[in-house]
Amino acid sequence: MKNDQPNIFYTVNDLREFLAIASKQGKRIGFVPTMGNLHEGHLDLVRRASDLSDIVVVSIFVNPMQFGPHEDFDTYPQTLNLDCHALAGYDCAAVFAPTVREIYPKGLSTEIDVPRLSTILCGHHRPGHFKGVATVVCKLLNIVQPDIAVFGNKDYQQLQIIKTMVEDLLLPVQIIGTDTRREPNGLAMSSRNAYLLECEKQLASILYCALKKVAKAVQDNTQIKATLRQQKERLISAGFVLDYLEIRDAEDLSMTYVESDTAVVLVAAKLGDARLIDNVIVDLSK
Amino acid sequence: MKNDQPNIFYTVNDLREFLAIASKQGKRIGFVPTMGNLHEGHLDLVRRASDLSDIVVVSIFVNPMQFGPHEDFDTYPQTLNLDCHALAGYDCAAVFAPTVREIYPKGLSTEIDVPRLSTILCGHHRPGHFKGVATVVCKLLNIVQPDIAVFGNKDYQQLQIIKTMVEDLLLPVQIIGTDTRREPNGLAMSSRNAYLLECEKQLASILYCALKKVAKAVQDNTQIKATLRQQKERLISAGFVLDYLEIRDAEDLSMTYVESDTAVVLVAAKLGDARLIDNVIVDLSK
Repeated sequence: MKNDQPNIFYTVNDLREFLAIASKQGKRIGFVPTMGNLHEGHLDLVRRASDLSDIVVVSIFVNPMQFGPHEDFDTYPQTLNLDCHALAGYDCAAVFAPTVREIYPKGLSTEIDVPRLSTILCGHHRPGHFKGVATVVCKLLNIVQPDIAVFGNKDYQQLQIIKTMVEDLLLPVQIIGTDTRREPNGLAMSSRNAYLLECEKQLASILYCALKKVAKAVQDNTQIKATLRQQKERLISAGFVLDYLEIRDAEDLSMTYVESDTAVVLVAAKLGDARLIDNVIVDLSK
Repeated sequence: MKNDQPNIFYTVNDLREFLAIASKQGKRIGFVPTMGNLHEGHLDLVRRASDLSDIVVVSIFVNPMQFGPHEDFDTYPQTLNLDCHALAGYDCAAVFAPTVREIYPKGLSTEIDVPRLSTILCGHHRPGHFKGVATVVCKLLNIVQPDIAVFGNKDYQQLQIIKTMVEDLLLPVQIIGTDTRREPNGLAMSSRNAYLLECEKQLASILYCALKKVAKAVQDNTQIKATLRQQKERLISAGFVLDYLEIRDAEDLSMTYVESDTAVVLVAAKLGDARLIDNVIVDLSK
């Protein structure tokens, strides 16, 4: 645990110069890519990266390529000073906070896509989103060249897409997922929770309840369809605009979860000004 | 100049193990990706890589992802033994000759595209071709992790796409293009020349003549349109099925070459069983 504020780097060259020294010293580099507005969930990722490496880099970049034309790119909370302050208590050596121009100096050109995984679930509701995610994560991984990179399980589909991309493109990095950090009422922590009114925050906790109810039905292999239907109706009655509540294979996100060892129950729903996502893993091997 | 046959590696792991030792010794790695059936043009690339690095890796992989359904994937000449023999006289430490399964263990999944450059010229006539090229080159670069990689200028559009991808994705490698090696009659060397009958090989030399005539008109800034039209007609009369004969900006392949320092005249045409491409650069800064 350090108490110093991390070094902040705004350009690829400055960050690479800093990291070249660490690399030459044989240090293992851990990387936590974020869009900033850090909460306890992000700090869990930093802690995990710190446990698994010698030097931790956190990137803070709100990536325009992963936002749709009517989404919240312009209003996404940007809190760099607070974020650096929050990181001061943790073992984070460097914050990389580039401008959009630094990451896309010539605009959009090369695109990375995992079509099989990027057009379903959230990809169906946010066309182009995961292409933007895969592309910027590949760019960031090539800038930082870390040994490990840590992502949250809350963005489960994103994590599977990144794992697939890294494996397919043979990027020399290990991708680690970490457990979702929750509010006391069960609501998964997210920067977008800031869009919720206080009463909506209370209501939002039933998302996790719904996931757990469906997960239990899957685990017990009983009343699965009925439970899914009930929980969808419950969310809709409560005022959610439901994008999906689905059970999938935990690895390839296919619908044939019954044949697999691990399933995942995923939900995406809008409440007030926020689009919320969450998921629960179900171990079927037991 | 060595006279030993290069080491042949068939798996990613074996090659990486071999290269890890070289990397630890601080050796600069040079890489020449090929589809095999090596000719003098390829050997120029190996020589160039050798001049610029300490250890040269040549990959030989006929990439199914870059062939269309009715193209020559099944008949593309595969001559691994002859290729290794040809490389014995050169400074090539390792040949990487993976199977399709080794490069695509889970089939096609992650795709890399540079849509602005990959849908024009050859991309228009070979849909999906450059997506296959960009993806496999990214994979190979991540496997070998070279300091430099050498490609032929003959595949000019491919070279620009690879340069763009490497720059956009911030891959830590320098991409080098080398001059096109030609037969005495001017025909650009290509593995696909093997598809030509002897009389077609003689005829094919007029492709380069046509390029030079158009290039001269561009250089002199006189009769450009008329020369283009004449040369197109000449090729068609000679029996070529012309895909295109065009003048483009040498860097972004846009049609606004008049505003740029360097133009490129590009041709693609079918003759008998072969689809031939070639190009000539025109320096407009003089």
